Amino acid sequence: MIFKNQGSSIKKSNTISKDDLINIYGSYSYEFTQKNNEEIFVCSKCKELDLIELDQLLQTVGWTRRPIRRVKRALEFSILVVGLWRHDDKFPRLVGFARCTGDGILEATVWDVAVNPVYQGQGLGKELMKYILRELKNIGISKVTLFADAKVVTFYKRQGWILEPRGSKCAFWYAN
Amino acid sequence: MIFKNQGSSIKKSNTISKDDLINIYGSYSYEFTQKNNEEIFVCSKCKELDLIELDQLLQTVGWTRRPIRRVKRALEFSILVVGLWRHDDKFPRLVGFARCTGDGILEATVWDVAVNPVYQGQGLGKELMKYILRELKNIGISKVTLFADAKVVTFYKRQGWILEPRGSKCAFWYAN
Repeated sequence: MIFKNQGSSIKKSNTISKDDLINIYGSYSYEFTQKNNEEIFVCSKCKELDLIELDQLLQTVGWTRRPIRRVKRALEFSILVVGLWRHDDKFPRLVGFARCTGDGILEATVWDVAVNPVYQGQGLGKELMKYILRELKNIGISKVTLFADAKVVTFYKRQGWILEPRGSKCAFWYAN
Repeated sequence: MIFKNQGSSIKKSNTISKDDLINIYGSYSYEFTQKNNEEIFVCSKCKELDLIELDQLLQTVGWTRRPIRRVKRALEFSILVVGLWRHDDKFPRLVGFARCTGDGILEATVWDVAVNPVYQGQGLGKELMKYILRELKNIGISKVTLFADAKVVTFYKRQGWILEPRGSKCAFWYAN
């Protein structure tokens, strides 16, 4: 079965075999479907990212471009890097991303949470965050932090994040 | 010359020779004196920390105790760990501390900034933060973040930190 999406022909498949899941997305990947839709999405911390594709994704959410060489190194030094793919047997498409830094022992901080605007409003960001928190919990981290832009504060609140506990404020320092 | 401070006899010295500075505190250490006072303080990212002494320092600022084994690992996975010592040739005393996590490329986050209450209000925290920002700048990081408790918001503001740029909020998630 073939259907059209954004000008490309994508084979539709409603399930992924366990073997395929691991072959394409690596271990510890997490498969889910959207509500009211038969497309399959997969979160994975193991599948290698194409940095050009990542750069394009981050541009769709309007972020400042960063040199790819620096992004590559930043990912290497992150403690968790997660891609969210719209599944396709041959050409999975990167539609979401997030990463965490931190000591990996006492705390972690989530950065660069992005979902392609075309796929927003379908619960993908929520699944992505669920996957991240579960992975961090698995390595024993009990406190996770993030800096939320004004427009996504509600999104995190709804998912049980506590905003500014005890009057905490976030502060940024920029080198000249 | 001997003077009394908190029940212990501490040799007073107004300067440290360059050799002594490196021998005691390691390379890249930063020596300064307080205003109106002749005590010498030293920030260092190289001098090894005594974890018991660190635990005692963090208790003086009223923080929840954390298992020392986990703290040790957290320090190992931090990208910058800084001690602030009141100088003494034989027994430097740890009076301040801070550490940073992050990818070390695009961003860093400052954690656990602590100055022993006995030494607060003398500009030590300011010097400690200056040292940290300089070190982070040296490795090319241009954006540094931190979560400021309500009571220290003014402290960071005065030093040029930007609070909640573009309406950012900090959000915390705690594992059950």
